[in-house]
Amino acid sequence: MQITKPTLVIDKQKVQANINRMLKKTENTSVVFRPHFKTHQLAEIGELYKKSGVVSITVSSVSMAKYFANQGWTDITIAFPLNILELDEINRIAKDIRINLLVESTITTSKLLDRISYPVGIFIKIDTGYNRTGLEINDAEIDRIIVLIKGNKNCSFKGFLSHAGHTYSIRGKNDILQIMEFSKITLNELKQKYISDFPDIIVSYGDTPSCSMADGFDGFDEIRPGNFVYYDIMQYHIGSCTLDDIAVVVACPVVATHSSRNEIIIYGGGVHLSKEFISADNNFKLFGYVVKMTKTGWSEPIPGTYVSSLSQEHGIIKTTDSGLKTINPGDVIGIIPIHSCLAANLLKDSFQII
Amino acid sequence: MQITKPTLVIDKQKVQANINRMLKKTENTSVVFRPHFKTHQLAEIGELYKKSGVVSITVSSVSMAKYFANQGWTDITIAFPLNILELDEINRIAKDIRINLLVESTITTSKLLDRISYPVGIFIKIDTGYNRTGLEINDAEIDRIIVLIKGNKNCSFKGFLSHAGHTYSIRGKNDILQIMEFSKITLNELKQKYISDFPDIIVSYGDTPSCSMADGFDGFDEIRPGNFVYYDIMQYHIGSCTLDDIAVVVACPVVATHSSRNEIIIYGGGVHLSKEFISADNNFKLFGYVVKMTKTGWSEPIPGTYVSSLSQEHGIIKTTDSGLKTINPGDVIGIIPIHSCLAANLLKDSFQII
Repeated sequence: MQITKPTLVIDKQKVQANINRMLKKTENTSVVFRPHFKTHQLAEIGELYKKSGVVSITVSSVSMAKYFANQGWTDITIAFPLNILELDEINRIAKDIRINLLVESTITTSKLLDRISYPVGIFIKIDTGYNRTGLEINDAEIDRIIVLIKGNKNCSFKGFLSHAGHTYSIRGKNDILQIMEFSKITLNELKQKYISDFPDIIVSYGDTPSCSMADGFDGFDEIRPGNFVYYDIMQYHIGSCTLDDIAVVVACPVVATHSSRNEIIIYGGGVHLSKEFISADNNFKLFGYVVKMTKTGWSEPIPGTYVSSLSQEHGIIKTTDSGLKTINPGDVIGIIPIHSCLAANLLKDSFQII
Repeated sequence: MQITKPTLVIDKQKVQANINRMLKKTENTSVVFRPHFKTHQLAEIGELYKKSGVVSITVSSVSMAKYFANQGWTDITIAFPLNILELDEINRIAKDIRINLLVESTITTSKLLDRISYPVGIFIKIDTGYNRTGLEINDAEIDRIIVLIKGNKNCSFKGFLSHAGHTYSIRGKNDILQIMEFSKITLNELKQKYISDFPDIIVSYGDTPSCSMADGFDGFDEIRPGNFVYYDIMQYHIGSCTLDDIAVVVACPVVATHSSRNEIIIYGGGVHLSKEFISADNNFKLFGYVVKMTKTGWSEPIPGTYVSSLSQEHGIIKTTDSGLKTINPGDVIGIIPIHSCLAANLLKDSFQII
């Protein structure tokens, strides 16, 4: 591994193990596994999924849909509230492949119906408690949207979709699975209400914490987790994975050491790792764990050693006397990111798959 | 202005006014204005500087040095502790143009001297109180580095350089200018100590807060502010600029509104604005102010309206009843970023200069 600047190092075996673990839970069931590709955004990781039999994917922007359509993917859900300013681009993609869109208002649905020129699937985005976006289950707008879609030649109603992002602020398997259960009940109530008119509608659900902790997905028709392919410290803290499951580190050159305060300076900052952090108490910020790079990957986290601060290009690592003795300028060390999706987005042009 | 997805909108007149204001303070003085280009990272903004007479620039990575060398810049300081793993790339750049490097240890200096093949300038990085990196003024390592450099045919000792990044956590002109004064005294003590041996050495200093607030730069030989070209909310809070001086907004499509909680959802998240925020108290996070886009630029911030949360692609805006009435899905609104350097880095491929 030749590293000269901040580089996302991706452990292919761990990625494959993470994919296999999730796939296994959908095997011999009718649940469609439609992984979210916003985490990796890479053709190469897409290929690993493809070889594992995955044919349907999720993305979070029209740009990403275009990128993966160009990589040969033909069934893509853009799991983001429809941006009607991109309808021209959506038409260009929908001309060639199957695209599913999310709506949550009659305003955007009307504009979509006016301007869409090719067949697309339409999900209604439901808020099952995250309170970011989506309609609540009893919102009359749901009915009005369905009335609009019904009979349109290009738009087929696909069903109800939610993202339970509030699992990220919960700890403990029981509480997380309760959120999943509540989402299942909510989404299926809606499904039952409309299934006689639309016999093919489904309920689609996804987030890494609950999909990682659940033993299976009975009651859902489709799951869309994404982050699990890499995992990260946030997921480790939530309890979604072990440290060993984390499939990426950001390899960073050491450029200075400060023995008077047990600090190491790396070439690796907010433009490589993002400014995402975990605050353990008011005065402590954790921007990443630190590992040694090895011939075949990386070590366990170095005890007492963590990224305490990031500026644009610099990272400051706090370490111990013994940590300091073994790390010198010119070395390359690995940082386990807090949020792998953001680090991977920043390092789309600087990665190595090992 | 045709906006369909998150786009950095750069107001050329404001950029020029910000450049002029800083330039004016160095006119008719011997102080070299060597602006930091890490803020914008754009050839187009570089051209504005070039037309204003700037010939010397600062960057924070070897990659940026390469980019601007390819744009015709021939005098570049890489204001980051030398990363010896990039010496091959540094040699390729130094073959054609003048590069200045920063060292702060004999370890890296020795490796540099062993492997550098073309003339480069060497600054010693001095810590004047920020405590990120650099040597303290009384560190014996300074002497040892200078002994190493002396007589090397490719490396010429350029002097002492510091970045007073601790001005970012201070409020008030007096306190910030005191940091500047302390840096000036410290750096000049070192200069006086070595000037008889190296008559051409200089002291180089730079950070946007103090360079914005100071009336002039007497006692420094060179200044290297960068952020001032755009400014942002952080600088506004520090007191470095007015809101009207801020030269960039991130234009974002509105994709949903939630009247029950006075929230607006934009296509614009952590991958566009970065996750940088200002916390006003324990429960309040500010990720950006919100403005209306106009034919010629943007409005004042909309009262009672701000970005309260960001995920990868979504932003949540909190607003008032009246704010909600005038903003609808399909509109484009502007977000004044907390940290323009990070937003500009994320939107290098999605910007418009107006």
